[in-house]
Amino acid sequence: MNNLGIVKRNIVRADKAAVEKLSKFGVATIHEAMGRVGLMKPYMRPIYTGAHLCGTAVTVLLHPGDNWMMHVVAEQIQPGDVVVAAITADCTDGFFGDLLATSFRARGAVGLVIDAGVRDVKDLTAMNFPVFSKAISAKGTIKATLGSVNIPVVCAGASVNPGDVVVADDDGVVVVPAAIAQQAADAAQAREDNEAAKRQRLASGELGLDMYKMREALEKAGLKYVD
Amino acid sequence: MNNLGIVKRNIVRADKAAVEKLSKFGVATIHEAMGRVGLMKPYMRPIYTGAHLCGTAVTVLLHPGDNWMMHVVAEQIQPGDVVVAAITADCTDGFFGDLLATSFRARGAVGLVIDAGVRDVKDLTAMNFPVFSKAISAKGTIKATLGSVNIPVVCAGASVNPGDVVVADDDGVVVVPAAIAQQAADAAQAREDNEAAKRQRLASGELGLDMYKMREALEKAGLKYVD
Amino acid sequence: MNNLGIVKRNIVRADKAAVEKLSKFGVATIHEAMGRVGLMKPYMRPIYTGAHLCGTAVTVLLHPGDNWMMHVVAEQIQPGDVVVAAITADCTDGFFGDLLATSFRARGAVGLVIDAGVRDVKDLTAMNFPVFSKAISAKGTIKATLGSVNIPVVCAGASVNPGDVVVADDDGVVVVPAAIAQQAADAAQAREDNEAAKRQRLASGELGLDMYKMREALEKAGLKYVD
Amino acid sequence: MNNLGIVKRNIVRADKAAVEKLSKFGVATIHEAMGRVGLMKPYMRPIYTGAHLCGTAVTVLLHPGDNWMMHVVAEQIQPGDVVVAAITADCTDGFFGDLLATSFRARGAVGLVIDAGVRDVKDLTAMNFPVFSKAISAKGTIKATLGSVNIPVVCAGASVNPGDVVVADDDGVVVVPAAIAQQAADAAQAREDNEAAKRQRLASGELGLDMYKMREALEKAGLKYVD
Amino acid sequence: MNNLGIVKRNIVRADKAAVEKLSKFGVATIHEAMGRVGLMKPYMRPIYTGAHLCGTAVTVLLHPGDNWMMHVVAEQIQPGDVVVAAITADCTDGFFGDLLATSFRARGAVGLVIDAGVRDVKDLTAMNFPVFSKAISAKGTIKATLGSVNIPVVCAGASVNPGDVVVADDDGVVVVPAAIAQQAADAAQAREDNEAAKRQRLASGELGLDMYKMREALEKAGLKYVD
Amino acid sequence: MNNLGIVKRNIVRADKAAVEKLSKFGVATIHEAMGRVGLMKPYMRPIYTGAHLCGTAVTVLLHPGDNWMMHVVAEQIQPGDVVVAAITADCTDGFFGDLLATSFRARGAVGLVIDAGVRDVKDLTAMNFPVFSKAISAKGTIKATLGSVNIPVVCAGASVNPGDVVVADDDGVVVVPAAIAQQAADAAQAREDNEAAKRQRLASGELGLDMYKMREALEKAGLKYVD
Repeated sequence: MNNLGIVKRNIVRADKAAVEKLSKFGVATIHEAMGRVGLMKPYMRPIYTGAHLCGTAVTVLLHPGDNWMMHVVAEQIQPGDVVVAAITADCTDGFFGDLLATSFRARGAVGLVIDAGVRDVKDLTAMNFPVFSKAISAKGTIKATLGSVNIPVVCAGASVNPGDVVVADDDGVVVVPAAIAQQAADAAQAREDNEAAKRQRLASGELGLDMYKMREALEKAGLKYVD
Repeated sequence: MNNLGIVKRNIVRADKAAVEKLSKFGVATIHEAMGRVGLMKPYMRPIYTGAHLCGTAVTVLLHPGDNWMMHVVAEQIQPGDVVVAAITADCTDGFFGDLLATSFRARGAVGLVIDAGVRDVKDLTAMNFPVFSKAISAKGTIKATLGSVNIPVVCAGASVNPGDVVVADDDGVVVVPAAIAQQAADAAQAREDNEAAKRQRLASGELGLDMYKMREALEKAGLKYVD
Repeated sequence: MNNLGIVKRNIVRADKAAVEKLSKFGVATIHEAMGRVGLMKPYMRPIYTGAHLCGTAVTVLLHPGDNWMMHVVAEQIQPGDVVVAAITADCTDGFFGDLLATSFRARGAVGLVIDAGVRDVKDLTAMNFPVFSKAISAKGTIKATLGSVNIPVVCAGASVNPGDVVVADDDGVVVVPAAIAQQAADAAQAREDNEAAKRQRLASGELGLDMYKMREALEKAGLKYVD
Repeated sequence: MNNLGIVKRNIVRADKAAVEKLSKFGVATIHEAMGRVGLMKPYMRPIYTGAHLCGTAVTVLLHPGDNWMMHVVAEQIQPGDVVVAAITADCTDGFFGDLLATSFRARGAVGLVIDAGVRDVKDLTAMNFPVFSKAISAKGTIKATLGSVNIPVVCAGASVNPGDVVVADDDGVVVVPAAIAQQAADAAQAREDNEAAKRQRLASGELGLDMYKMREALEKAGLKYVD
Repeated sequence: MNNLGIVKRNIVRADKAAVEKLSKFGVATIHEAMGRVGLMKPYMRPIYTGAHLCGTAVTVLLHPGDNWMMHVVAEQIQPGDVVVAAITADCTDGFFGDLLATSFRARGAVGLVIDAGVRDVKDLTAMNFPVFSKAISAKGTIKATLGSVNIPVVCAGASVNPGDVVVADDDGVVVVPAAIAQQAADAAQAREDNEAAKRQRLASGELGLDMYKMREALEKAGLKYVD
Repeated sequence: MNNLGIVKRNIVRADKAAVEKLSKFGVATIHEAMGRVGLMKPYMRPIYTGAHLCGTAVTVLLHPGDNWMMHVVAEQIQPGDVVVAAITADCTDGFFGDLLATSFRARGAVGLVIDAGVRDVKDLTAMNFPVFSKAISAKGTIKATLGSVNIPVVCAGASVNPGDVVVADDDGVVVVPAAIAQQAADAAQAREDNEAAKRQRLASGELGLDMYKMREALEKAGLKYVD
C-alpha cells in the first residue's frame, strides 16, 4: 500500500543547462524568483561556513536511528546529484560521516541535504564536501529497517521530488521543481539584473521610500510622522 | 511559475465509505496499518482533551500573520471536509477563531488542522469544534497576501493532497492518500481484530517475549541475562 | 545606576471601573481592540483549564533560581492586583507554590503571571488560584539575591508597568496600559457588539468573502479560480 | 566493554515501607526534603491530568525508534515497580501503547516514566495507567536493536538506579535513591508538618517577610523602599 | 489608542562621548557594570564570527512576515545609529538583506539588531555589516502593514528606547539607557581596570578562593572537604 | 542525606597512557568503539571552530545562576583535567569567562565542558582555551549557594564520574569511564585501522552495498527495485 522498501532507478533529472544557470544565484534570489515558495526550514544549516551546492535531487527516506538506506541511495547517485535525506520522525543522530561522503563523492554527488544529524565534521570540511543538516552529532546509527529511494519526500518542511534542483548556501536550502528549473533561472537572472541598479542607487543615499515609491501608500495606510 | 494565488474548485475526494470506515480507528492504528508513514509532527495537539476528527482534506496555503485565504477556503468546503492549513514559514499567530469556526461549520466542515496558532479556545471548545494546531495564541492576523486553496501542501511535516483523508485524535494527525483510503481502512480493521486477542493474552500475564516469540531472536542478537 | 534592589510602594493603578469592564472580555478581543499589541508570548499557559484573571499589575523582577522577592512583593499586593513576575534570564524553576498562593490570596491578589515555573499545581487548582506560567516544575529556589518590586519589567516579551491591567485566559495574556484602560474596554465592547451580528450571518451560511466584501480585492490581487 | 545487551534479574528494591510512606507526599515536597536534587527535567509531563505514581524503578535503555527492550523489561517487573525508560538519543516516537500497558499492569507495574513518546493516550487514560513522558506520538517503533534492562540510566536528566524510588505527579518526576528512601520520607513528613502551620499563618494575612524574619537580611542586602 | 503607524522623527540620542567610551568595552563587562540587567536573550547571535557594534538605537516595530517599516526607519537613521527591530510575534523570516544594508550604511547606520531572521549573509559578511539576529532565513517578506518607528520596543526580551546605546559582540547584545550611558561607561572602565590585576594573580596560580577571600563564607555555608 | 556541599579531594583518574591514546581519536570513533553509549546531547557545541580536548574529569554541580563552586573546583584541578560542570536545572547564564579560564589553565586544566552558558568568547578563543557549552551568554551569576565537587553528575544527558576520560571535538562530547579507558582506546584504534582500508575502497567507487555485503539482507527484508 505504501511506498516503503522501494528503490526507483530511473528518474527524470532537471535540465543540466538550467541547473548550471541556477548554480550562479543565491538561495534568497531563487526563492524570491519563484514567488517565495520552496524553502526548507531555517534550522537547516551548513556544517561549515561557506558551504554551498546546486544539483539534482536523489531522495532517500530513512527511519530514526537507521542509516541503512544511505548505502542503497549511494548506488543511484549520478554525477551532479545532491542526496536529499528525509526521516520519518525527528532525529538528531549522525546518519552520515566521512566514509559515506567518500563513497557519495566517488559516485559524483555534489553534496548532502539531511533533516537529521551528521558527524565527522572536521573531515567533511577538509574534504570540502558540502552538507546542510539539522544537527551535528557523533551518535551512530544501525542498519535494520527499509526506507525508500527516489520517492517524493518532505525534507525540513519542503516537498522534494527526485530530479528537482536543490540549491543551498549560507541563507538556507531551496527546492526548484524540475519542470520549472529553466523558468526559475530566468526569473532569478531578471531579479539579479534588477538588483544591481537598485544597489547603486541605495548606496548613493537614495531611500527605498522614494526608489520604490512607497510614500503615498504609507500615507494612505495612515502612517503619521510626529516630532 | 508557482501555484500561489490559485483556488482549485474541483477536487477528487476520497470515497465516502472509506472515510466512514477510517473514522472508526485511532490514529496510531491507521498509521501502523499504512506502514508507519503519513504522520504529522507530534507538536500538533488538540486544543481540548478528547477532540477528534476524520474527513476529506481541503487545503489552504497561508503566509505568516495573514489569514486572508481562510475566507477563500471557506467557500470550497463541502460537508465532511477538514480544512488543512499550511503556512509558508513558522508562525504561531492565531489564524482562526470562533467566527471562522461558525462559518466553516455552516459549510459542513468537521474540523481544522493548522500548522500555526488558533484562538477563542474556550468558544471552540464550547462549540465542540475539533482543532489540531501547533499553538494557541490570541495574536490576530491581517488580510493582505494571496496564498492558494486546494493545492498540495506540506503541513507539520506531512504531505497533504486535496481530497486525502485526515484523521486526528489524542495521539496526533495522520494523512491517508485518497487512492488508498479503502485499503488503509481494511488494514486498520485487520490490525484491530488482531489486537483484541493479543490484549487478552497480555492481560492474563503472558509476556510479549513469548507471544511474539522473541526469545530466540534476542538470544541470537546477544542478549545476556545476569544476576 | 540601575533599579535593582528597589521596592516602589506607591503606584498608580488603572481605574477600577475600567478594570471591571475589561474583565468581561476575552484576551483575543482586547488584543484586537488595542490594535494587536500588548500580548505576551504564546508559551505562557494557564496551569489548569479554564483559569482566567483580570487585575492591576504589581511587578516583580527576579533572578534565576531565586524567589526571595516574591515575599517582598506580597506586602505590596492590594485587593484586585495580579502579580507579574519577570526573570532576568530564562529559567523554568518553580518560584511559586501553594504557600505563596495562600499568602498572595490573603493579601487580595487575583492571580499570578510568571515568566518561569511554578509548582504545587494540584493545590493551586484546588484553590482555584489562576496562574499563567512558562513551565511547571517542582524545582525549588533559594532566597539570596535582590531584585525589585514595582519597576517596569519585560514579562514573556511584553512590557508591563505597575498599575497596568493584565487580562489572561485560555488564549493567552494581554497587557493594557493603565492610561488607556477605559478606552480599550470601550473598543472591546464595540468589537464584541459587532461580532454578534457577524456570527449569526456566518452561522446562516453567508461567506466572509461576501460579508466582508473581499471578492474584488482578491481578484485585484490576482486570485484565480481553476477547475 | 559496555553494558548494552544485558538484563540484570536481581536488583535490590527500596524498602517497601519507605516506598509506601513516600507515596503520601508530593514531588515538590520530596524534592525539597532531599535538598533540591533528583528531579527530572520539567518537560516530563503526565499524559492525563491527575496522573500520579510511586514505585520502585526497573530501568530500561532503548535506542531511538526501537522498543524491543520494552518486552524484555516486562518480564522483570514485580508488583509495585515503575518502568523507567531512557533512550540513547532524543526521540519522540511512540514506544508504548495500550498493549504494553496491559502487559505491564498484568505484571504488577504501577506506571511508566519514559524520556520519549507514547501513544494510545485515550486508552491509557481509560485504563488509569499513569505515564509521564516527553511527548505523545502515534509514531510506531521497530524491534531490532539490543538495549539493556536494570542498568543505571540517565532519564530526562536524572540518574536512576534499579530499585530507586520514583515518584511522579502534576509537578514532575523525582528519583529517591533506594538507600535514603526512609530518610527522605521522614524529611518529607517533617517538612509537611511544618508547612501546615505556615499555611495557616499566611492565610491569616501574616507576611512571609515576618514569618521567615527576612526583613533584616533584605535591608542588609541593600533593599530600598521608595514612594 | 495605540502607537502603531507612528514615526517619531526627533529622538534624544545618548551622549556621543559616552557611546564612544562604551564602544571600548565588551558586552559582558558593560552588563556587569550595570548590575546585570539590560541583556537581550542569548538566542541573539552575530551572523558572522567577530561581528560587533556600538551605537544609538533607532527602533522599529514590525509585524511577522512584513518588512515595510524597514524602509521607513531607513530615513530616520543618523550616522552612528543601530537599527533595533522588534516583531509583534515570533517570526524567523528574512526581513533584511544586502540591499537594505546598503541603504542603511549609506545613511550612516553601524549595524542591525533584529529579533527575527535576515538573509544575504554572504554579502553582509563581505560588506562587514554587523547584524545580530535570531535566525538566518532566505524567506522573503511582504510590504503591507504599518508598524512604528522610534517608539519604545521589547526586542529579544530587552526593553529598548530610541536613543539608548546598544552594544553587541560575540557574547550577546546589551542595552544601556541613554540617561546612564556615561555612568555605565565609567563603571565598565573601573571594572576593567580591576580585572587586569586579578587576571595576573590568577595566571600566577593564585586561587579565586583566596583572592576573593571565599573560604570562610564557604565553610560557614557548610562546605565539607572529604577524602 | 544528599551530597550537596561536599568536595571530594581524592579521586582516581583514568590511566594517563590510556588518556594519551584516546586523545588521538575523534569523538565519533570513540563513541562507536564503546558500543554507541556515553555521548552528551548534541546541543553541546564548541565555542570556536576546531576546539577539541581530552582529559580526566573533575566534576562540579552548580545551581542556576550561581557559579560559586567554580572557584571551589579550581583548587581540585590537576594537570590534564577537564572541568565538567552540571547544573541542577536548565540555565543559559554565563558561568565562566576569561578570568576563570586563566585560573583553570594556571592549575593545569585542558578545557571545560559545561551544561550552561559561558562568556568572554573572544578572549577564550584568543587563549585557545577549549570550551564545550550549551549556550553563550554575557549574563553574570552570583555566588551564594553550595553545590559539590567531584561527585557523580549528569551533564547534558551523560553520566560522568570524577576521573572519567572526557573527549570533545567538532562532533560532540563523549565520556569514557575510567575503568575501560584502555580498552576503549584499543577498540578505537582497531576501528580506525579498519576504516582506512574501507575509505580507499569507497573512494575508488566500490559501493558500501558490496563492501559490507548488504544486498542479500536488503533483498530478504523486501527491498524492491523499480524503473
